[in-house]
Amino acid sequence: MLFKFLPNEFNFFDLFDKQVDYALSAATCFKELASKGAIDEGSLEKIGDIEHQGDEVAHEIFEHLNKTFITPFDREDIHALAKEIDDITDMINTIVSRLKIYNVVSVDKNLIQFASVIEESVRAVACAVKGLRSAKNFQSIQESCVEINRLENVGDKMRDVMLADLFDNMKDPITLIKLKEIYQDAETVLDVCEDVTHVVGAILLKQA
Amino acid sequence: MLFKFLPNEFNFFDLFDKQVDYALSAATCFKELASKGAIDEGSLEKIGDIEHQGDEVAHEIFEHLNKTFITPFDREDIHALAKEIDDITDMINTIVSRLKIYNVVSVDKNLIQFASVIEESVRAVACAVKGLRSAKNFQSIQESCVEINRLENVGDKMRDVMLADLFDNMKDPITLIKLKEIYQDAETVLDVCEDVTHVVGAILLKQA
Amino acid sequence: MLFKFLPNEFNFFDLFDKQVDYALSAATCFKELASKGAIDEGSLEKIGDIEHQGDEVAHEIFEHLNKTFITPFDREDIHALAKEIDDITDMINTIVSRLKIYNVVSVDKNLIQFASVIEESVRAVACAVKGLRSAKNFQSIQESCVEINRLENVGDKMRDVMLADLFDNMKDPITLIKLKEIYQDAETVLDVCEDVTHVVGAILLKQA
Repeated sequence: MLFKFLPNEFNFFDLFDKQVDYALSAATCFKELASKGAIDEGSLEKIGDIEHQGDEVAHEIFEHLNKTFITPFDREDIHALAKEIDDITDMINTIVSRLKIYNVVSVDKNLIQFASVIEESVRAVACAVKGLRSAKNFQSIQESCVEINRLENVGDKMRDVMLADLFDNMKDPITLIKLKEIYQDAETVLDVCEDVTHVVGAILLKQA
Repeated sequence: MLFKFLPNEFNFFDLFDKQVDYALSAATCFKELASKGAIDEGSLEKIGDIEHQGDEVAHEIFEHLNKTFITPFDREDIHALAKEIDDITDMINTIVSRLKIYNVVSVDKNLIQFASVIEESVRAVACAVKGLRSAKNFQSIQESCVEINRLENVGDKMRDVMLADLFDNMKDPITLIKLKEIYQDAETVLDVCEDVTHVVGAILLKQA
Repeated sequence: MLFKFLPNEFNFFDLFDKQVDYALSAATCFKELASKGAIDEGSLEKIGDIEHQGDEVAHEIFEHLNKTFITPFDREDIHALAKEIDDITDMINTIVSRLKIYNVVSVDKNLIQFASVIEESVRAVACAVKGLRSAKNFQSIQESCVEINRLENVGDKMRDVMLADLFDNMKDPITLIKLKEIYQDAETVLDVCEDVTHVVGAILLKQA
């Protein structure tokens, strides 16, 4: 009765494509910025804009989800997917803000390494999510998910080595506090990418 | 079949009203306490009691939710709403406990500022949640949600300025650790208030 | 009684038993390790293996959940239960990794105390979860849940006392950073155990 007046189908795939492109832009922007070791106002604003636009797409997805009766896959999976892609962009923006707030201006080799792994992982996330349009992409989606999981393990080990080194050698506690938080945040981005593979895995299984 | 034996309607609104009043009491108590800059045993106990009572209402909501067949809006939304209002009270209680544990006794101007924004935001949360009883409050609920979102942005910027200042000027790392965590927690309260607007927004959309 | 009427397409109980046994192994391993105050490579590897095996059982549960039409209790409760038992094992593994990364090698009386409470709590979690097979365990499940809640309160107070003591007496900020994080993580394990009681409570209520 209620549903009669609601649009009963909606193309969520176009919005997911847009959302995941924003996440990838954020990752690329972060990679460039890390290699320059300088947080200029321009990049800060750019990544803030990307985050804002990504946020709007997420809200569009949530709105359509609440108004749409027939969805391409389970509502909870659509919600979780939009939430987690949003978290990727958010977290990258958070790291860049912290670099500014903590006044970390020199090039940090560890951060360059992390930014590069993050960009690879978000690129694989984009492949997996964009593949969801069609069952024929099953194989390539699975390959992307394996790659994302591999990169999460790589990131885990990177963070552990970096933290052990930091606690061994950094004598200034305030610098230690800054870098510790930034490395942990960087690893969190890879965790969120892995969370995406869980949702994607659930979607594939249910369609199998 | 099973449902025949279950109470099939229950007035969740009364419980939400009670729960959100506890959240507001906690916010008001925190504001008073911040302006005094002293955590006496009395206020500590008072806020602990409020948290405990709020917790009991949350549990009552969860219990009724599991036993009730017909709910005024989606079960998942009722669950999320109760969880997030509970998180507001919890988080305020956590901040006050930390002030005690970290032995932060002097008046901190930043904290007074945060406590004031938090109280404003929780007041708007109370308006939004209490409005859910009737469709005629649609307009005022939306205004409250806009206000909560505005205050979250205010809090975000406040925290960033305070942290930048802290990292620029605080030379004692242990004091820095304490205040950094407290400012971040304070901002988290505003994030949780914003989470409430997402649930409220979903409820409004579904009823539209 | 209820379970009798459901054609159990898949026996989730066996997997939950396995999963909760891994959580308990992790807790026991952590307790031994804390009392030795030495993180040798052997225990580190052992707890890593347990975490990995627990992870695989969690994934098995998620996969079966996505493929099984009729489940012994609500799908969301099965998902939440598997997620939270996994979080217990994960968090214990995280603490042990941190001890290694932060090079915390001496025996810490606080950690021994925490490890002992954690093991008690995870043992009660195991009782509660294993009891879910049959309605006749209702009473003993409830007793386990009460015990888990009691231990969470104990842990809360323990952490507060330990942190207050740390901030009062520890003059080395880097050691303070390490121990603060480890005590907070230890308390988080007890929080996750308490989260299990919420899911278990919901399951019991729905079957009542």
